[in-house]
Amino acid sequence: MNDKKPLVSTKPLSGFMELLPAEQILFNQMLDTIRQTYEVFGFVPIDNPILERSEVLLAKAGGETEKQIYRFSRGKKDLSMRFDLTVPLARYVANNYYDLTFPFKRYAIGKVYRGERSQAGRFREFYQCDIDVIGNSQLALNYDAELVSVIDTIFNKLGFKQFTIRINNRKIFNGLFMELGLVEKSNKIMQTIDRLEKIGPDKVKKELENYDLTGRQIETLFNFINLKGDNDELLLGLEKIKIDNQVFRQGVKELKEVIKIIRQLGVAENNFKVDLTIARGLDYYTGTVYETKLDQYPEIGSVCSGGRYDDLASHYTKQQLPGVGISIGLTRLFDQLIKKNVLKPGPSTLTQVLIIPLTEENLDSGLKLASKLRKNKIATELLFDNNSKKSLKYANKLGVKYAVFIGETEKKGDFLTVKNLLTKTQNQLSEEELIERIKQHD
Amino acid sequence: MNDKKPLVSTKPLSGFMELLPAEQILFNQMLDTIRQTYEVFGFVPIDNPILERSEVLLAKAGGETEKQIYRFSRGKKDLSMRFDLTVPLARYVANNYYDLTFPFKRYAIGKVYRGERSQAGRFREFYQCDIDVIGNSQLALNYDAELVSVIDTIFNKLGFKQFTIRINNRKIFNGLFMELGLVEKSNKIMQTIDRLEKIGPDKVKKELENYDLTGRQIETLFNFINLKGDNDELLLGLEKIKIDNQVFRQGVKELKEVIKIIRQLGVAENNFKVDLTIARGLDYYTGTVYETKLDQYPEIGSVCSGGRYDDLASHYTKQQLPGVGISIGLTRLFDQLIKKNVLKPGPSTLTQVLIIPLTEENLDSGLKLASKLRKNKIATELLFDNNSKKSLKYANKLGVKYAVFIGETEKKGDFLTVKNLLTKTQNQLSEEELIERIKQHD
Repeated sequence: MNDKKPLVSTKPLSGFMELLPAEQILFNQMLDTIRQTYEVFGFVPIDNPILERSEVLLAKAGGETEKQIYRFSRGKKDLSMRFDLTVPLARYVANNYYDLTFPFKRYAIGKVYRGERSQAGRFREFYQCDIDVIGNSQLALNYDAELVSVIDTIFNKLGFKQFTIRINNRKIFNGLFMELGLVEKSNKIMQTIDRLEKIGPDKVKKELENYDLTGRQIETLFNFINLKGDNDELLLGLEKIKIDNQVFRQGVKELKEVIKIIRQLGVAENNFKVDLTIARGLDYYTGTVYETKLDQYPEIGSVCSGGRYDDLASHYTKQQLPGVGISIGLTRLFDQLIKKNVLKPGPSTLTQVLIIPLTEENLDSGLKLASKLRKNKIATELLFDNNSKKSLKYANKLGVKYAVFIGETEKKGDFLTVKNLLTKTQNQLSEEELIERIKQHD
Repeated sequence: MNDKKPLVSTKPLSGFMELLPAEQILFNQMLDTIRQTYEVFGFVPIDNPILERSEVLLAKAGGETEKQIYRFSRGKKDLSMRFDLTVPLARYVANNYYDLTFPFKRYAIGKVYRGERSQAGRFREFYQCDIDVIGNSQLALNYDAELVSVIDTIFNKLGFKQFTIRINNRKIFNGLFMELGLVEKSNKIMQTIDRLEKIGPDKVKKELENYDLTGRQIETLFNFINLKGDNDELLLGLEKIKIDNQVFRQGVKELKEVIKIIRQLGVAENNFKVDLTIARGLDYYTGTVYETKLDQYPEIGSVCSGGRYDDLASHYTKQQLPGVGISIGLTRLFDQLIKKNVLKPGPSTLTQVLIIPLTEENLDSGLKLASKLRKNKIATELLFDNNSKKSLKYANKLGVKYAVFIGETEKKGDFLTVKNLLTKTQNQLSEEELIERIKQHD
């Protein structure tokens, strides 16, 4: 008789990514690349809680985001799981204002939660990898350019040669809307223009007509959007265009300056591009805006976006805190790249050496060697099975590179039999030779 | 008139740790040390979701833990936040049984949640750093010893010279209880014995009397607990003791074997100790058990605990999956060490070099140098302020080591003025000399 309870289903929740070892290793390597790049650009790590009082998150969330929040009560408390890393940053900077040094350059890598309807490529739990530079009442423009250099470095290191960071400045649109008397409708118009690539110019025009724009207004907008050419030609076009609005002029000036600094930082010309159609929907952004696309996989959409904002934490402090930031949504990017077979998982292990003692008498030597290799920072396992073929199978299944056999022959001759499982070659090496070989080749 | 809403409170939830940059850097360094050690011992990273279906977590949680779970509904779903990393591991191994290679050595570092009453030193969100080795129906004893070598390596690397890993085997207790006819009461008795150090032998005896133990039973228990001496003397004492129970004998044999392998792995004799009073409360553990104490700070309690269990995932699969694992609760440990002033936060930055262009004309050279240093993996910032004293103040406040000035003099002479802000010395160096110096000294 079986008196056990029925087994519980073992699937993770839908919309929650869970990886096998080989994929997880790859994912973590990407996280490490991002983290190391953030650090080399002088950003400092901050780790905020995943749970917040709901009023903190709701102060800034709106519309769709608010509906997606995981919110619940516990005792008298109204709690929510964070839906991004920016709102916790705003609370943090306001809370620690007098202890921080400005410009405050922080990075954060962590999970965020959005309980949206499950659909392909959408996750309810996903990693964001963010950097922001926060100024105290002012912030130099060179940080707007520096973030482009950060994106450039990361996607190069991740092995994507062909990607384009598209850059615009929201003041250009804002000035244009002022000039056209369309400030009231600017949000709707920008959200429509943001979809230009998706739905095409005809549908955009039709939508704009629905907002009661005149033919002349639409024409001016399209004259502007249709400016063509390389970065310098576009900048020249913007300078020549007959719009006499101060905000517009300021936007053009900032964009020109940012492009200049991007070049001084050595970002390759084919990896960035002025794109006057980038608007980044929400009215949060007030200056430079970015989007990044992988040239060969435009259907993935923007893989790194962000921009400049005038005031990070107006809900939490009276201090004015302008900032500029970017975010990489790594979970979705990783998922897409795996599905497209762009990323191919490698070994299911980080282990470089598997030590296989051939008899119980050789266990002692094997254990000592394991400790020695580990002290030399060589990832090492030892498997004793009384059956060296089974141990070898384990190594091959995982993708371990070196199998090291220790038996009586080896003990007498004071050497190790080292088999490279990738090249299928076998050598007799001393411990020191083994360590040298691995340090040089791996 | 101010028409803004009142400001929202910026404090994090109580029981949720949030660190300033200097502390966060230190915390992350400890996390990195733990992670690197886990990897060098051949463990592979796995990252499970923080949210689970409640039935998954409740299948294994019991008593106090169950009350502490953050549980809520969303739509038709009953969700909970994980309270440890072991239950998600059990579900994961059951779910991916046919894709994993056994023994499966995984590490997991992540946040877990327990909504307990707030009290000093207790956290509701905290990091656990776990490793487990999971076997497929069997698992060699050398892994029990290997975990001791892992703990030893980590606490040495973290800079604690004086710590003791206490080791026992639950079979010894279990056999003793069989011999004494106390199996039914064994859980209560073990929980009492676990508190021996806290409440002293007299109170333990009194509690045992309350459980209706006879004088002879209590005497035998104490004869056993009171075995004294170094590791070899204790093992000899155990072998000599007149208890003819098979389970007891098996426990003694395993303990002896584990101690032998620990020595072969080169763990220093003063960092581990057979301790027959370690029981580790719950009936989860079935063999080797560990606790680790910092000798100078016994009041912190165990900083790394764990043990061997017969069956990881009986609620989720019919496969028998024995395992052995340990866990470090880093949040609480870090908090205690900071409060005791054992850990002292250093700089508030990871930046090694701050470049200070003296005039706007030198911005270009500064930006080029920044990119060059970053390519050489030197963490670099550039601050242009038209006021080099303000930039220097920024560097000093953060604790940046090198300030590099670029002005007209430097440009003409083709050198950099490099100030070491720690030693207050200043040098004229070429770019290559600067890179060399930092690579050699930092």
